[in-house]
Amino acid sequence: MELSALIDGLARGERRALARLLTVAEDGAPARLREAIGALYPRTGTARILGITGSPGVGKSTLTNAIAGELRRRERTVAVLAVDPSSPFSGGALLGDRVRMQGHHADPGVFIRSMASRGHLGGLSFATPQAVLVLDAAGFDDVIIETVGVGQSEVEVAATADTTVVALAPGMGDGIQAAKAGILEVADIFAINKADQSGAGKLESELRGMLEMGHALEDVGAAASWWPPIVRTVAVRDEGVAELVDHLDAHGRHLDASGLREVRRRERALHAVREIALEQVRLRFARIGHGKDPLLDALAAEVAARELDPYTAADSLLDAIEGGTA
Amino acid sequence: MELSALIDGLARGERRALARLLTVAEDGAPARLREAIGALYPRTGTARILGITGSPGVGKSTLTNAIAGELRRRERTVAVLAVDPSSPFSGGALLGDRVRMQGHHADPGVFIRSMASRGHLGGLSFATPQAVLVLDAAGFDDVIIETVGVGQSEVEVAATADTTVVALAPGMGDGIQAAKAGILEVADIFAINKADQSGAGKLESELRGMLEMGHALEDVGAAASWWPPIVRTVAVRDEGVAELVDHLDAHGRHLDASGLREVRRRERALHAVREIALEQVRLRFARIGHGKDPLLDALAAEVAARELDPYTAADSLLDAIEGGTA
Repeated sequence: MELSALIDGLARGERRALARLLTVAEDGAPARLREAIGALYPRTGTARILGITGSPGVGKSTLTNAIAGELRRRERTVAVLAVDPSSPFSGGALLGDRVRMQGHHADPGVFIRSMASRGHLGGLSFATPQAVLVLDAAGFDDVIIETVGVGQSEVEVAATADTTVVALAPGMGDGIQAAKAGILEVADIFAINKADQSGAGKLESELRGMLEMGHALEDVGAAASWWPPIVRTVAVRDEGVAELVDHLDAHGRHLDASGLREVRRRERALHAVREIALEQVRLRFARIGHGKDPLLDALAAEVAARELDPYTAADSLLDAIEGGTA
Repeated sequence: MELSALIDGLARGERRALARLLTVAEDGAPARLREAIGALYPRTGTARILGITGSPGVGKSTLTNAIAGELRRRERTVAVLAVDPSSPFSGGALLGDRVRMQGHHADPGVFIRSMASRGHLGGLSFATPQAVLVLDAAGFDDVIIETVGVGQSEVEVAATADTTVVALAPGMGDGIQAAKAGILEVADIFAINKADQSGAGKLESELRGMLEMGHALEDVGAAASWWPPIVRTVAVRDEGVAELVDHLDAHGRHLDASGLREVRRRERALHAVREIALEQVRLRFARIGHGKDPLLDALAAEVAARELDPYTAADSLLDAIEGGTA
């Protein structure tokens, strides 16, 4: 289908157009994605972007579903983008979406999509922000990015979201998971899910201790003074979820009052521009790596034979690309 | 310390020089790493590079330790690089190394190091091959890269190793873990660890089924005809480990006989050159992203204000970098 027809369909709220544009974001041809984002971009910037991250087993999907339900009760439309960086090859996304939709399947105000990026060289960290732009342009009030916390991905989510929720659960190696400094750095709000299980109190006090230690070490300016609240939830029974959503709203007000929203939006734009530029460079490398240009092959042969070190070879490669000879 | 003194120390087998050069690979200043790799590179290319990957809980560390023990019995020196992409912020690497060294601590022929990359923009996928070069130059017969299989990382290991072992274990969601096509693609050898537990036979037959299906679908050339063996191990009791090491040797002979070793070395060199070139581009972006050049800030502001789409901004950024104005 013509891209312009898809974009018109998106503007009219057609689900099929939305799904197809998400596929373009996920693994479309680079030129088509570029055209789509160029056309969509002026319609973006209105959605609230929420991130939910946490280790496997903390009940992230259930919590996300419960938050989506609460947001619907508050008459907001919700899109969920479920990103699992540990399954780049998974083909089970569709089935997963169907399972996850239960409870929302009759509601046109909720849209759920799993991402399995195979198309782009930059992987999910490249494809996710593009998919978020599509959902933003589709007019959803809230776009939730749900991702398994495997290190780098938490940081990526935080780079894309206005507000990031880090979900933890008792008995998941408690201290160890909280000890990851990265989690503390990216969290605007903590949810201790499965809070009816033993160990929730211990986890919460460990977390408070680490937050206080981190806070004492940091040089915290007035504008940035947000103390991440810790909310106990039992997502399967909807307990604590309304309170969590209240905190999402409060953090939104903090972003506005402190001027941080504008700062984060600029950082996000900067991140997007940089990632797209890197993807362009990767695409050029990929092209010359596939025999369409003998330069990289020749360099690799010299490096493999130890006649040239890889840094000097990389310089030659960059010179050639920038000089337009590759 | 002067880099030249470290390199001389490395050549004399000094552990302190080795440890410090690994720190340079892990999070050293880009210029220092570049100088180090340039100086080391001519001494590399002699080590056998082995990759061991698998999901958390399959007993990878124990298996790696057992393989190292078996290699020592065969009078080979061994370096282990334990890479955990899920803990980029972990500070626990040193303690982990001490725990892991048990059984080898009196043996100068074994060296174990955990990687926790914080320094480089390209993360562990950039730092790992550099650390492997350091260990290769240090003269170890075998360098084992052990990594938690979280999607992309298996592929990265395979790109760096001569031979990749994928470790599985019964009762870990069996079918599901094997179903990841990525695991099938990268494995030269499968180890079913904890093979004394129930479900080992079921896992093995599922795996065989998938391999046969994959084999039937593929267009397999004569040179590439290696059928990944499946070895059952109980690493805690050293069972099956000698057989596994025999398969490592057999795969090495296959690499030589088929000409695949040269192909893989060139691919690895190509990958290295590309990754280093990308890291150079990332470094330039990072520099102009930190206020040393107003261009990216200005572009980000326009993108945030929806006056410019991110692709057009990325073009401007690349033009400026390549034109030398940034």
